[in-house]
Amino acid sequence: MSESMNQQILLKSYPTGAPTRSNFALVETAIPQPRDGEVLNRTIYLSLDPYMRGRMSDRESYATPAELGKVMVGSTVSQVMKSKHPQFSEGDFVVGYDGWQAYGISKGESLRKLDPNQVPISYALGITGMPGMTAYFSLLDIGQPKAGETVVVSAASGAAGSVVGQIAKIKGCRAVGVVGSDQKCDYIVNELGFDACINRKTQDLNSALKAACPNGIDVYVDHTAGPILEAVLQQINLGARIPLVGLISQYNAEKLPTGPNLMPLLVKRALIKGFLVGDYQERHAEFIHDVSQWLQAGKLKYKEDVVKGLEAAPDAFMGLFQGQNFGKLIVQVGDNPTEH
Amino acid sequence: MSESMNQQILLKSYPTGAPTRSNFALVETAIPQPRDGEVLNRTIYLSLDPYMRGRMSDRESYATPAELGKVMVGSTVSQVMKSKHPQFSEGDFVVGYDGWQAYGISKGESLRKLDPNQVPISYALGITGMPGMTAYFSLLDIGQPKAGETVVVSAASGAAGSVVGQIAKIKGCRAVGVVGSDQKCDYIVNELGFDACINRKTQDLNSALKAACPNGIDVYVDHTAGPILEAVLQQINLGARIPLVGLISQYNAEKLPTGPNLMPLLVKRALIKGFLVGDYQERHAEFIHDVSQWLQAGKLKYKEDVVKGLEAAPDAFMGLFQGQNFGKLIVQVGDNPTEH
Repeated sequence: MSESMNQQILLKSYPTGAPTRSNFALVETAIPQPRDGEVLNRTIYLSLDPYMRGRMSDRESYATPAELGKVMVGSTVSQVMKSKHPQFSEGDFVVGYDGWQAYGISKGESLRKLDPNQVPISYALGITGMPGMTAYFSLLDIGQPKAGETVVVSAASGAAGSVVGQIAKIKGCRAVGVVGSDQKCDYIVNELGFDACINRKTQDLNSALKAACPNGIDVYVDHTAGPILEAVLQQINLGARIPLVGLISQYNAEKLPTGPNLMPLLVKRALIKGFLVGDYQERHAEFIHDVSQWLQAGKLKYKEDVVKGLEAAPDAFMGLFQGQNFGKLIVQVGDNPTEH
Repeated sequence: MSESMNQQILLKSYPTGAPTRSNFALVETAIPQPRDGEVLNRTIYLSLDPYMRGRMSDRESYATPAELGKVMVGSTVSQVMKSKHPQFSEGDFVVGYDGWQAYGISKGESLRKLDPNQVPISYALGITGMPGMTAYFSLLDIGQPKAGETVVVSAASGAAGSVVGQIAKIKGCRAVGVVGSDQKCDYIVNELGFDACINRKTQDLNSALKAACPNGIDVYVDHTAGPILEAVLQQINLGARIPLVGLISQYNAEKLPTGPNLMPLLVKRALIKGFLVGDYQERHAEFIHDVSQWLQAGKLKYKEDVVKGLEAAPDAFMGLFQGQNFGKLIVQVGDNPTEH
């Protein structure tokens, strides 16, 4: 790629089932120039998240679909190269929504400045960004964990799941994670301090959950739906709370699968409630305050899985649905001048 | 039956699938005598409710199973014949839990006196009793309907459903019922004042719900689960509330069926929450206050389906699951001296 060109990955077609390389197209275009009120950003990191699969569809979801023929959408951490916007200056580090490209133009509305001296700038795509905020509010606001209760989380080594379990521990709960490999189990128990872990690929979910949750399950932060939710429902306690945050298990399904029988909700007067982090924007400060403190105090740990080069994004994205990433998946698109 | 004998229907076996006559046995025994602290009740009305199917099983539920070889359980309205309990006198009318028998002994704990001058004593099994209270708190406490919203209820001509729709109207909502016959549709729209009705046996649920709920569904009080819940989820609005009160559609299932795909809960940040009326006992006065006022003001109407004779109870109970009853199903076991 020429230094004076922009590299972009376009959404060429909506996938049927799992996304493939053929749904994307890598193109080179001229680096755009900002107009009044705009900034030109150079992408340093691009976030890859399961929710993006929902955008690659004209099925109804909580957001409008990504447009065919346009740059694929996504959160980015960037450096401002040129600014015609009063609130941003050349050299600023920002988190925004420039998508899968090396350079992006932003009007500044969804752009937030980052302080590179606080935490690494890439954290804004993970623990201090959308996934961290998802973990924080889904667990605390819907889950309402009380000390001594048992909190289960699926996709527990992921960007949100790993934070859910750690906050559960901070709140005095028993934290149990469900993951897809022994290596991830080892990580969440021995490095993050979860009390127990279940490998969904090698263990029987029902008996493993029973063993890991001897006092039943009070809160289940659900990132997957499917068989894990079904097994959890068999072990819920009276008044259990289940924030439904994601349904990774079915994002690639060509036909929506059926769900679990809901009898346990009635028997245990429990609730399942859908969660979307966008509803909590006005409480962003509350989240940043707590999470920054916990990070500084060493109570929260964070792991990233960094893939190099924009062209690696499609494969890395496809791997998300097989649990191939280990930690928050981000693509390093350009140099990070704050790295040492 | 001899006048000096007690007639009882015992639970002989747990049904597999739908209950049959062979699960019950009619026997005659001596009329029991109350000991100190007990009363002898003569049953006037026995309530038949879908929840009883859950008791006829050793599957886990919110209550202990009915015991084999014992009198089948159920709510009753009775007259006190003999009292050795300081709070009850001979001649008192009471609502209790004496089960499927002509005479019962009660220790008084679950017995409540009825004033026959207020509303007909049989109402204590319906609109001023457990089904009415279920409707009141499931709709108001979990459903939280706001004026102008759309409330849908299944089993809408039933003891609880008919009250849900009428309270929804009192609260300024659009009330839409789902029932199993045109006659029931006619009743809930033209007599109870529902805005619309769907006959689940003759109409396509998805298109009928769409037509009946042009502004979407804000509250769904679910008595059935199954296909109605699945169709409702396709039409829910942002922040919809679904009290899960019953799962009639599957009470006779030999193997629990799967449930609906839960994606709409996430997309619409909606909730499903299990409800059990027993959790609201301490708020009984609040319920009685409102419902009595509404009954007196003619804002609430109530229909009973009265079957004569204890021996008719098994067939009537079986009919509940085919929607054969029309109105609150009760069995008149003995004379009602308050009737004129």
